Amino acid sequence: MMKISQKRLAAFCSTILALTPECRLTINDLGWNTQSVDTANVAMVSANLPKDQFEEFTESESTEIGMDMPRWKDMLAVMNDKDSTIAIERMKDTCRINISDGKYTYTHAPLDVTTVRKRPNPPNIALPATIEIAAKEFQEAIKAMGVIADKARLTTDKAGLAIDSEGDTDKLHKVVEATGKCQVPEVSASSIFSLDYLTDIAKAMKDAGTLTVCVGIDHPVRFDFTLENIEASYLLAPRIERD
Amino acid sequence: MMKISQKRLAAFCSTILALTPECRLTINDLGWNTQSVDTANVAMVSANLPKDQFEEFTESESTEIGMDMPRWKDMLAVMNDKDSTIAIERMKDTCRINISDGKYTYTHAPLDVTTVRKRPNPPNIALPATIEIAAKEFQEAIKAMGVIADKARLTTDKAGLAIDSEGDTDKLHKVVEATGKCQVPEVSASSIFSLDYLTDIAKAMKDAGTLTVCVGIDHPVRFDFTLENIEASYLLAPRIERD
Amino acid sequence: MMKISQKRLAAFCSTILALTPECRLTINDLGWNTQSVDTANVAMVSANLPKDQFEEFTESESTEIGMDMPRWKDMLAVMNDKDSTIAIERMKDTCRINISDGKYTYTHAPLDVTTVRKRPNPPNIALPATIEIAAKEFQEAIKAMGVIADKARLTTDKAGLAIDSEGDTDKLHKVVEATGKCQVPEVSASSIFSLDYLTDIAKAMKDAGTLTVCVGIDHPVRFDFTLENIEASYLLAPRIERD
Repeated sequence: MMKISQKRLAAFCSTILALTPECRLTINDLGWNTQSVDTANVAMVSANLPKDQFEEFTESESTEIGMDMPRWKDMLAVMNDKDSTIAIERMKDTCRINISDGKYTYTHAPLDVTTVRKRPNPPNIALPATIEIAAKEFQEAIKAMGVIADKARLTTDKAGLAIDSEGDTDKLHKVVEATGKCQVPEVSASSIFSLDYLTDIAKAMKDAGTLTVCVGIDHPVRFDFTLENIEASYLLAPRIERD
Repeated sequence: MMKISQKRLAAFCSTILALTPECRLTINDLGWNTQSVDTANVAMVSANLPKDQFEEFTESESTEIGMDMPRWKDMLAVMNDKDSTIAIERMKDTCRINISDGKYTYTHAPLDVTTVRKRPNPPNIALPATIEIAAKEFQEAIKAMGVIADKARLTTDKAGLAIDSEGDTDKLHKVVEATGKCQVPEVSASSIFSLDYLTDIAKAMKDAGTLTVCVGIDHPVRFDFTLENIEASYLLAPRIERD
Repeated sequence: MMKISQKRLAAFCSTILALTPECRLTINDLGWNTQSVDTANVAMVSANLPKDQFEEFTESESTEIGMDMPRWKDMLAVMNDKDSTIAIERMKDTCRINISDGKYTYTHAPLDVTTVRKRPNPPNIALPATIEIAAKEFQEAIKAMGVIADKARLTTDKAGLAIDSEGDTDKLHKVVEATGKCQVPEVSASSIFSLDYLTDIAKAMKDAGTLTVCVGIDHPVRFDFTLENIEASYLLAPRIERD
């Protein structure tokens, strides 16, 4: 039996669903943990929900569950009281999961875990720049870039993170100023990313308060953040442009 | 000449429009009354608006009018001040109806009553269970069921009305507790209904406060309710499932 | 360099965009001015933004710029703080325009002015009736007419401006009462207009407070109004109906 606040469970699910419709969830005596890449292998999400963030957690043996993210979203659309507690109980005999907020009881058949892609091996990447910025400001900037283009360049700047996009004739430039740490190399690091991905990621992170962004030169970008006490990160591969 | 509050007229029209785009309205010295079945003959609506619920009512002879429900809805989209009074006047010479809220004047040609289906003969059905529940809670439960399936089972329960739906792999269960009368048979009565119909009906009733629900075994369900002092009911035929 | 409040620039752009996607903007020591007809030659918009309505205005030589209205709208969707000031700077070397609200910098390539239709010669029309009405009430009335028809008749009335529309079977009538001047001829003047155009125009004017409407008999209608201190007018050709 696991009990968790509706808000926290919803944040966990939407962090994953922003990138991928299914994942392998590890449940063990540390809590919940998952890592998953999107269908196109362009981005990776990690989410860790420590045991002490549950209101009750009596699972002892380690197990893996195939999470069907849109179904979990449906469930949370039914059990949508943000102030409620959701009880999750695995029924060993039927392989079903009972999920209840006290008003509704949802009997869920998780995905067969062998049909879900395995956890990726997290790539070993050293990114030279680390900048702390406000999640909400980043999300607004990404939304603005989307008005004129389908990709954006992220560049280290002494003041923070510069974002640039370029349409057929017009250009948009914005510096999201660092709110904390701003460790950038002498020669600025810069990479180009798909705004489709950045938009989904930025939206999922927008209530996180602060993001730690790590960038390199034509390298992936990594966003580390905490949302409802979930430790999460996104890693997004760059688009390599040829002139 | 008939004068009626905008809110009451709007409630009368939307109660009918939830099921059917046209009906025969009887106007006589008791007020307004109609009964109509939907195009597929699956559901029936009855609505009765007593004369004393009008602010003025000087019609004396009995007549029948063909109501084109979407047009009445259009009218009320124009004359949309909920605190206003709508004056409705039949022009005997032109067969038109003048409708006005003091700001707009709408000249309406009602449907030729002979082109509208006749009133149905209300079926003679004895339903063994009667349960009073909250309209809003019922509507939320029906909406939730629609997330995972296209039909739902209504079952009598000692505590009230149980609702169950079943998707490809998942199930949802909810008991809407009785708020008043809960007269249920020893052996529980249960029938399955289309969620398309239940959704439209539940939405039309959601501001009614309390519903009286009557169910049987593979029998229609009847909902009796009062909305803006309109006495209304829906009768919905079951879906018979073969195993 | 020109600096202008975001709100005023947005009002200028949406006044023009209500009718036409591009225009020739004259910038000279009087300020900004444009006149443009829509693609179908049915309506004309004039907008004049006097120099003293800018927070800073240091342009001295007269020039013409091709305004791509949807792009300006995009820009203002990015720089959307109504309380901000927008700085607009023409870069003579690159023919670009730099537009900034201090947070975002937008580099814009205006349209080649020779590809944009020339200013129309304003038609010389004498309209016998002049009526002042409330912009909001006019907009609501036009919206209501759109519920039942695609054209509406505007007629002078001793009390103000009468509006009538006629659907297949139903009719809607409304008098928008004069709030000030109401100079109408003995024999009422009346013309029919497309509700598509009237809807766009009425929406663009709805926050203008008061409109001065000039109508004739089967003649264009002219609306003069002031919005965020922009002096603007629309001229709309009638639809001539044959019986």
